[in-house]
Amino acid sequence: MGRRRIYHRLVTPEEALKVIENHIRLAPLGVESLKLREAVGRVLAEDVRAVIDVPPFDRSTVDGYAVRAEDTYVAEEYSPVTLRLVGRVEVGEAPRVGVGRGECVEVATGAPIPPGANAVVMVEYAEEAGDKVLIYRKARVGEHVSHAGSDALRGEILAWRGTRLTPELIGALAAAGVKEVKVYRQPVVAIIATGNELLEPGRNYVEWRIYDADTYLISAALAELSCKPLVMGICRDDEEAIRERVDEGLRRADVVLVTGGTSAGMGDLVYRVLDVYDPGVLVHGLKLRPGKPTVVAASGEKLIFGLPGFPLSCYMTFTLLVKPVLARLAGLPLKMLERARVRATLAVRIAGAPGYRRLVPVLLRLGRRGLVAYPVGGDSGSIHRLSASDGFVEVPEGLEQVLEGEEVEVTLFRDRLELPDLTVIGSHCPALEKLLTRLGARYRVRCLNVGSLAGLRAVIAGAADAAGIHLYDEREDTYNLPYLRSVRGAVLVRGYVRRQGLIVARGNPHNISSMRDVIEKRLRMVNRVKGSGTRALVDKLIGDALRELGLEWGDVEIPGYSFEARTHNGVALAVLRGLADVGVGIEYVARLYGLDFVYIKDEVYDFVVSKEAMDKESVKGFLRLLHSQWFRHLLSEMPGYEPLPDTGQVIYVSDD
Amino acid sequence: MGRRRIYHRLVTPEEALKVIENHIRLAPLGVESLKLREAVGRVLAEDVRAVIDVPPFDRSTVDGYAVRAEDTYVAEEYSPVTLRLVGRVEVGEAPRVGVGRGECVEVATGAPIPPGANAVVMVEYAEEAGDKVLIYRKARVGEHVSHAGSDALRGEILAWRGTRLTPELIGALAAAGVKEVKVYRQPVVAIIATGNELLEPGRNYVEWRIYDADTYLISAALAELSCKPLVMGICRDDEEAIRERVDEGLRRADVVLVTGGTSAGMGDLVYRVLDVYDPGVLVHGLKLRPGKPTVVAASGEKLIFGLPGFPLSCYMTFTLLVKPVLARLAGLPLKMLERARVRATLAVRIAGAPGYRRLVPVLLRLGRRGLVAYPVGGDSGSIHRLSASDGFVEVPEGLEQVLEGEEVEVTLFRDRLELPDLTVIGSHCPALEKLLTRLGARYRVRCLNVGSLAGLRAVIAGAADAAGIHLYDEREDTYNLPYLRSVRGAVLVRGYVRRQGLIVARGNPHNISSMRDVIEKRLRMVNRVKGSGTRALVDKLIGDALRELGLEWGDVEIPGYSFEARTHNGVALAVLRGLADVGVGIEYVARLYGLDFVYIKDEVYDFVVSKEAMDKESVKGFLRLLHSQWFRHLLSEMPGYEPLPDTGQVIYVSDD
Repeated sequence: MGRRRIYHRLVTPEEALKVIENHIRLAPLGVESLKLREAVGRVLAEDVRAVIDVPPFDRSTVDGYAVRAEDTYVAEEYSPVTLRLVGRVEVGEAPRVGVGRGECVEVATGAPIPPGANAVVMVEYAEEAGDKVLIYRKARVGEHVSHAGSDALRGEILAWRGTRLTPELIGALAAAGVKEVKVYRQPVVAIIATGNELLEPGRNYVEWRIYDADTYLISAALAELSCKPLVMGICRDDEEAIRERVDEGLRRADVVLVTGGTSAGMGDLVYRVLDVYDPGVLVHGLKLRPGKPTVVAASGEKLIFGLPGFPLSCYMTFTLLVKPVLARLAGLPLKMLERARVRATLAVRIAGAPGYRRLVPVLLRLGRRGLVAYPVGGDSGSIHRLSASDGFVEVPEGLEQVLEGEEVEVTLFRDRLELPDLTVIGSHCPALEKLLTRLGARYRVRCLNVGSLAGLRAVIAGAADAAGIHLYDEREDTYNLPYLRSVRGAVLVRGYVRRQGLIVARGNPHNISSMRDVIEKRLRMVNRVKGSGTRALVDKLIGDALRELGLEWGDVEIPGYSFEARTHNGVALAVLRGLADVGVGIEYVARLYGLDFVYIKDEVYDFVVSKEAMDKESVKGFLRLLHSQWFRHLLSEMPGYEPLPDTGQVIYVSDD
Repeated sequence: MGRRRIYHRLVTPEEALKVIENHIRLAPLGVESLKLREAVGRVLAEDVRAVIDVPPFDRSTVDGYAVRAEDTYVAEEYSPVTLRLVGRVEVGEAPRVGVGRGECVEVATGAPIPPGANAVVMVEYAEEAGDKVLIYRKARVGEHVSHAGSDALRGEILAWRGTRLTPELIGALAAAGVKEVKVYRQPVVAIIATGNELLEPGRNYVEWRIYDADTYLISAALAELSCKPLVMGICRDDEEAIRERVDEGLRRADVVLVTGGTSAGMGDLVYRVLDVYDPGVLVHGLKLRPGKPTVVAASGEKLIFGLPGFPLSCYMTFTLLVKPVLARLAGLPLKMLERARVRATLAVRIAGAPGYRRLVPVLLRLGRRGLVAYPVGGDSGSIHRLSASDGFVEVPEGLEQVLEGEEVEVTLFRDRLELPDLTVIGSHCPALEKLLTRLGARYRVRCLNVGSLAGLRAVIAGAADAAGIHLYDEREDTYNLPYLRSVRGAVLVRGYVRRQGLIVARGNPHNISSMRDVIEKRLRMVNRVKGSGTRALVDKLIGDALRELGLEWGDVEIPGYSFEARTHNGVALAVLRGLADVGVGIEYVARLYGLDFVYIKDEVYDFVVSKEAMDKESVKGFLRLLHSQWFRHLLSEMPGYEPLPDTGQVIYVSDD
């Protein structure tokens, strides 16, 4: 274990930032001149002054007639004044005619005011008759005249240093004759992914390897931050190779990010590489879960971050630690550092991590009583936790847990919360997937497969609009309805029948006909996740088989019982690849993968729908599709599926 | 007036949208395949499925030792189990060793689980001793093992059609082996600016012309909207020329925007051009101020918008009408159409526009009691209304006014509100500008010149942190303090002395020595905006002079009295350019422009500061600088300025 290194004192991200500030000046890296049109989104490094007066000359703000106001003082609605029309001033040209006593000149919006005139009468209050104009309303001196420089004066400051250039500001500066602006230079950030296991996305898959997601994740996030990513590719887990790559990064970039290789298990490769620089490692380890194995180092004035390799861990430390640093180097307004937050009700209890601040990715749904946060499960290697989350909840270091129903603060991954129209959290089903794909043409859908029981709970807690469930109740020997009786605020909508049984290899080589065979022959199974409707069936089948054999749970090891697939497809794939001899699942996926199927029983797959969501457009669309002839036909075409007479109908409504 | 055309029935932007929907299918224009990394921010046109299982193999989620869980069942903290270390599995490689009874294998985070093992013991609970490992904790079956496909399964849908590709999603899809994605094509939007008066920004100024701000404004806004701008340049006000340009736009783009030339005063040029297409003009005129002269037309399935030329009017109709259309053509989530809104307290009364929905640009400031909205003044040609505003308030068609103190809803120009650190609204002063420029190194500053009285009101209403004021009180023959006595929540901070007088041409050709000369000689003056401290002085000087001459207001016309410059510089420039013979202003700007100056009196320029803002960092920095030796020195160097013994000190605190 000599290669493994104990972490120095772990610090919070805020403490890490202070340490960095003590070594490095976190200020804009420089200034560059840009043509105005290229500068949208950039931050001004100087006060910008108007180059010309705006407007550059006295002009009319309306269509009408330029007059001497004093000539109109007696004009009234029923007693107009008559003025002589002596000409017209063209927009964009010098006025070639003046306005004398009793005269007027036609002007369009934006046209120069001719000499002698001091007001404009709107066309609505005038009537042209040959070379005369009747004026039906008295004009005030200066009325509808915009004086030269009255909006902005040559030399006047229009935008101050530190301001981000919005489209509106770009437009205003263009009008004021500004051609170029000085803005802060964008920091160049080198990204080096380390790990012998890494494959570049886009290349064909090679066994025992994983795709490098971090480079994509971070370079996409950098673009949002007004930084330039410098993708340096994948580097082997080799001290010399990483050192060379970091050296190159330091030459070509302002900040270097190294992902992976930070854990003690890698012999703390990155730590050792980075500690060679001067001043070397500043921070080693964060009080964060995920995100602990983070290294901050510096070479002279340039920062090097070693971020954990798992995408979620990498992204969390990037968000909490690297982003604030880069924002300051980019000269972005301090406000950028305050990440957008929303308050939400927690749908499911989350545990803390003693000694660490725990970061829990959540998805959000807007219910009747506000936002509800649902923790997206999985380990720190999980990509679902990234792809299905809107932000994260921070559980402070000292807190043991946060209970469901408590209000939490959710830090959003981006400023704008773009919630889907329909959130479905529940049991996985290929027929449901087909239905949602069709619904996706009209509504934005989000679907998370977590099993029946968790789905039911998500709907009750307000985290989902609907859940597919297939929960067997032994006492009543029926599906789903008994589970609805004890809950509130939910509606049960009739789904369809799915044939369930044992999925075995083609030709059924072990000649399996029941769960009893599986136990007796000590075959390897693949299980389903806890809380799934199928898991309940698996446990019932094993329990029944044990009873038949006169055995009890624990008397015998069932190989593969802990191998929990998340979906029916997962079960079929495990059997297809020979990782398991048998699994419990639906006939449809067995056929899909060309496997054999031993029928056990029909199950009923229904939908729990949030009562408060029944009048949402997306939910109505969902129910319409469920009830449609198109869907009945689809079910009858899918092997192992059957519609029911009342498919798509509400069969139970709980109390509020 | 024959060329002028009466507007068809005016409609609201919402009605206009309905009309458009009845003619054109507002749906995505097409689909394109992109490499994953190029697709950030784009909208998925298909459901995206995992290409490989994630993780692709059973792997360890921690650094530790792969074991058979059953071998560890008796392990305890003070009574470890000893296992034989039979090897190590490298990350990224096939496991070359299996785990038998009583054996273990070293694994790092992410390494494959070797055959035979079904759990991992974390390194923290193990101790290596030669070829043995002591295990101090019992492992559960499956502990710290992430099973192949447990996160995502090959073929499983990871993101649904209509989803915007965030960095997190890009990362997740990369991990799942996705190489390319189908996204909706970005609409190409042609921008044609019409008007003989238009000059391209960047070119040298030509008299009687204005810079084309609309093209810059709209093309910058299009980029934010996932649309591609096609800049087609400036077109003369000529029916044939515009027609040709629109034809080209229709060939090369999906939507054509024509700015300018929509007002009746232009002979409704754009209306006439667009009505030739089939089906031609769909909407002519919006119930909007600004924004009325808007034309919507179509040629086949392609939309053509004629937008008013004044930048603010152009931007408002773009925001309310064009943006929602483009968002749908781009396939952006429906949520994009809901513009971000905030609630704020209105600082100053705003009037409605009978028969129109009025749009009033406002700046926002966050005070103790929430956001305060301050209407930025000016006409619809004003660029300040664009550059200094954060969003706008809509005054409904039927409403006569909204009073100060009422709560209003502000539609933000963008999702993220980036408020400045310090908001100064008040009287213009070159010394203040120099001070704020220096302060801009540390804080984001916004400064709006509206005059002393409006500035005082803005501070009281919570719309500004501070205001420079120089308000003379005749009764007490003193500056500023008397005005503070009747207000609440404000602090008066001592500023400095400015020498005031008449600004006249070099050599004083009209031999002006007093305002009486101006009136007697019927000279042309330039005035200052109402509510400015100088305007009060102007009116007092004229009043005194009239009394001396035995005259009253209205007895005599004072040429140029209605020509209201917004700043001292404006006064000086008007004199410099011969637009006026005389104006009232400070010595500093007279000297700056090489003009002559007739001293009248010293004035005291102080600062009103919001009491609640006194502990804001930016305000403290402002006051520190005001009190600094640097600033005293600056004042003593500026002609016509003088510091006071108590410059920078609080001289009065009002009640709360």
